[in-house]
Amino acid sequence: MTDPTVLKLVSSNKCFQGLQNVYEHSSNELKCTMKFAAYLPKNDSQETLPVLIWLSGLTCTEQNFITKSGFQKYAQEYKIIVIAPDTSPRGCKIEGETEKWDFGEGAGFYVDSTEPKWARNYRMYSYVNNELHEVIRKNFTNGDDLRVSIFGHSMGGHGAMISFLKNPNKYKSVSAFSPISNPINCDWGKNAFTGYLGSNVENWSAYDSCCLVKQYNGPSVEILVDQGTEDNFLKSNQLNPDNLVKACEDTSSVRVNLRNQEGYDHSYYFITTFIGDHFEFHAKYLKN
Amino acid sequence: MTDPTVLKLVSSNKCFQGLQNVYEHSSNELKCTMKFAAYLPKNDSQETLPVLIWLSGLTCTEQNFITKSGFQKYAQEYKIIVIAPDTSPRGCKIEGETEKWDFGEGAGFYVDSTEPKWARNYRMYSYVNNELHEVIRKNFTNGDDLRVSIFGHSMGGHGAMISFLKNPNKYKSVSAFSPISNPINCDWGKNAFTGYLGSNVENWSAYDSCCLVKQYNGPSVEILVDQGTEDNFLKSNQLNPDNLVKACEDTSSVRVNLRNQEGYDHSYYFITTFIGDHFEFHAKYLKN
Repeated sequence: MTDPTVLKLVSSNKCFQGLQNVYEHSSNELKCTMKFAAYLPKNDSQETLPVLIWLSGLTCTEQNFITKSGFQKYAQEYKIIVIAPDTSPRGCKIEGETEKWDFGEGAGFYVDSTEPKWARNYRMYSYVNNELHEVIRKNFTNGDDLRVSIFGHSMGGHGAMISFLKNPNKYKSVSAFSPISNPINCDWGKNAFTGYLGSNVENWSAYDSCCLVKQYNGPSVEILVDQGTEDNFLKSNQLNPDNLVKACEDTSSVRVNLRNQEGYDHSYYFITTFIGDHFEFHAKYLKN
Repeated sequence: MTDPTVLKLVSSNKCFQGLQNVYEHSSNELKCTMKFAAYLPKNDSQETLPVLIWLSGLTCTEQNFITKSGFQKYAQEYKIIVIAPDTSPRGCKIEGETEKWDFGEGAGFYVDSTEPKWARNYRMYSYVNNELHEVIRKNFTNGDDLRVSIFGHSMGGHGAMISFLKNPNKYKSVSAFSPISNPINCDWGKNAFTGYLGSNVENWSAYDSCCLVKQYNGPSVEILVDQGTEDNFLKSNQLNPDNLVKACEDTSSVRVNLRNQEGYDHSYYFITTFIGDHFEFHAKYLKN
């Protein structure tokens, strides 16, 4: 077993004074070589910086967010380390793994699979919430406990929300762009959860934000959600942010600030427009 | 002959309140169908907005700048229309057109070819400086004369500088990121100019910034140039910004403000870091 905290630098580009790096490492959770991106702001102080984890959507790798969102300007401004993992294990040679764009490679859905075919490798939930934390602590925060928040887009918005709701003491804050808010009630989610978790729908609720909100027992939290009104996946009922708002009505401890952004779609043109707001939001929690 | 000012909308994404559009049209200069990008800021006034033309580097299409530079934030802030054409004709079926990454498709070098094989299509100089102006005027400035500036990256930085120096009355200002400053004295330029213009080097100087500076007879101008010190193409002598600075020493009317940016490379991570400065620079000239 190799040590997942041992990193190989794949690329390094200076950007807004800091470094946009990409690393490779051997993941024990996923049993494969994984890449992830790390933006390291220029930091003249001795202070350990807080961390923000970004989870990307379907079909993405670690590249999409770092090349298209323009986040580095804000990461440097607020002095926050940003970690962007890939969206699934890669190259595991499971039959059918690369056939579909919404299942298998590029579509790990941030769950720990239980179906035998996928269970050995498709453990993105544990990868993001456990192994990646250890990697960050050892390599980027001098071994200090993490001050860490999480956000993401679409499938990654779902991933960020379930990660937070299941680990209220691990994360300071959570936000999402156009998240898949209620996967057990949309086609993408039903398809992926059937594949990774089996056909017993009772096992799905552990990875559904609308269900998790009802069981949430952490401190009071506000989730920031930006949603474009011209998002085709909103119109085809894959995202269902209203279900999340409704689920929160029955609880006093989770509030959703759903901002319907007029005329925006599902693309990175939407994300880049509001990414600065999300840094401002997380900085409030990470810097206190 | 079709009308090049008739546009077909290929895509439209809302971004920073404005629209990032991509259009297709039939170019008479290039005798093929061309795509170009147009960012149209939200404009509540009746005022006709100024225009900034971006020329991309080798291998790029109209997509690279609009997805990776993050310019839209500044284009909206300063209310400047931004036009980004493709970097060569496409699909002309000339033998060898797609074989090399630094010649033919994706590598038009912003010259009007004279070699028979290329002369019918490879006329990017006239496309950018004449036809595209007409397209912009008809479609985006209500037929008004243009207030227009030009900038670009690498091959496109060269393109921007020669376009300005040959047309001082057409453009208000010019800037460049890591431009090929002296193509007649670097491998990329020698190779491309031989192919497009023939082996008689006397015909090359009409498209070389260092030569054009010496013949420049327009109003006094300052060219803003940003250059990363860790740029591999700087190190391999493809860019030669010092030759440009030297050429300007012999003239009083062209000054180069060469900013050597410590640690930055040739990538869009470099461009996005300083793109805001270039908008501030051009806005001074476009808004007066």
